[in-house]
Amino acid sequence: MAEKSLYNYRVEPQEVDFTLRSTFASLGSSILNTAGLDAYGKGFGVDVLNADNHSWVLSRMAVEIDRRPEQYTDYTVATWISDYGRVLSTRNFTLTDAAGREFGRAVTQWAMIDLTTRSAVDLSWVGRQHDGAVVPVPPPTEKPRKIREVTPTQCSEHRVVYSDIDFNRHVNTMRYIEMMLDMLPVEMLTSELPMRLDIHFLKESRFGQMLTVGCELRERSALFEISADGTAAVRASVEWFNAPER
Amino acid sequence: MAEKSLYNYRVEPQEVDFTLRSTFASLGSSILNTAGLDAYGKGFGVDVLNADNHSWVLSRMAVEIDRRPEQYTDYTVATWISDYGRVLSTRNFTLTDAAGREFGRAVTQWAMIDLTTRSAVDLSWVGRQHDGAVVPVPPPTEKPRKIREVTPTQCSEHRVVYSDIDFNRHVNTMRYIEMMLDMLPVEMLTSELPMRLDIHFLKESRFGQMLTVGCELRERSALFEISADGTAAVRASVEWFNAPER
Repeated sequence: MAEKSLYNYRVEPQEVDFTLRSTFASLGSSILNTAGLDAYGKGFGVDVLNADNHSWVLSRMAVEIDRRPEQYTDYTVATWISDYGRVLSTRNFTLTDAAGREFGRAVTQWAMIDLTTRSAVDLSWVGRQHDGAVVPVPPPTEKPRKIREVTPTQCSEHRVVYSDIDFNRHVNTMRYIEMMLDMLPVEMLTSELPMRLDIHFLKESRFGQMLTVGCELRERSALFEISADGTAAVRASVEWFNAPER
Repeated sequence: MAEKSLYNYRVEPQEVDFTLRSTFASLGSSILNTAGLDAYGKGFGVDVLNADNHSWVLSRMAVEIDRRPEQYTDYTVATWISDYGRVLSTRNFTLTDAAGREFGRAVTQWAMIDLTTRSAVDLSWVGRQHDGAVVPVPPPTEKPRKIREVTPTQCSEHRVVYSDIDFNRHVNTMRYIEMMLDMLPVEMLTSELPMRLDIHFLKESRFGQMLTVGCELRERSALFEISADGTAAVRASVEWFNAPER
């Protein structure tokens, strides 16, 4: 039976903010990097799919970070696929420090698209062909929530440039997350409170498009919608929690 | 006698563009990361300096990339300090692929600043205290050039946000480079021609400032000036060369 796979990281100098702790975006980047590496290593990575004119795209993601690790700290990302549906596969993650204490977790849901039509294809065959890769351990937290409606209290605009786009020729997930978080007060971003992000993707954004980033700021949370030409491309929410009793 | 130090990297999925080769910015990021790691490991990193209310800041950098490595490719960054002056120390880099072929190189010049006054301090004492860290091998290419005058043919504006700033609370070098490169035609950025970047820093840019990014585009090169409130903060040039005969 398949087991969780482990990948080791260290918080590098360019990944910290002025609190000298890893940014939320850097941790998210390690999580997504782990997904790519693990699929690649197991033979169903973007490289293999591309040969068939297919690719993985992230559909939804939930990330919880209880505390942001300090610069030069080692940490481990464990990942496992808990199920393949017809449209979405679920890949899970836990983040643990060198002492084995869990400080974060994530649940991601991926679709496979046809690179010509850019629409989702049935991925039951992946489940059949790679069922040995499924680990029967449930997701470590609630699956990504759908955000249905956002009433922005503030907006900013952003033209999609070269450094925003990734190998799929659409805006990189972490860039979306940065665009949204950059609208929040710095004190919220550098607070040491546990934080949860839910994000879901509705439509791809391509090079040259003008994006509108709307933010509905509440007391301990915020909702976001990024749209292009009046159509929502991404919605997300961020929430802060009280620190757990130690 | 001190020797060059070696650091191993791999081109990760989030570091490539749609040509599936590492972006210039990712390679630059590995170079700067190597500088931080090496100083840290040798006992004169930002962590030690901060205790004395000092920090390293990059003053000038030249980077040459002959070819951008492909996704999942391993490469090695070698680094060494060739000299400490009174104001600037020179740290050098070569990038080699798994077969030992050099595909890039960089020369960086660093100043030490006082964190209260934000001005440069005499760093002769570092040279004396760490003279064992100097490797008597000259820089692998021409030192960073000063760009004296830029006459922009196009401009864009950018408000400095949280994700732009680093542990020094000023705009991250790689973000400056991305802001500039993003003004160029995508065909130039994804070309496979050898490229050289020279960048020098005149003034720090801080959170919340509005930056103007000016670009003077020529046939095989471009000059840049990023300014805040009418004062130049950064100037840079990018140049493409003919591919060498193979």
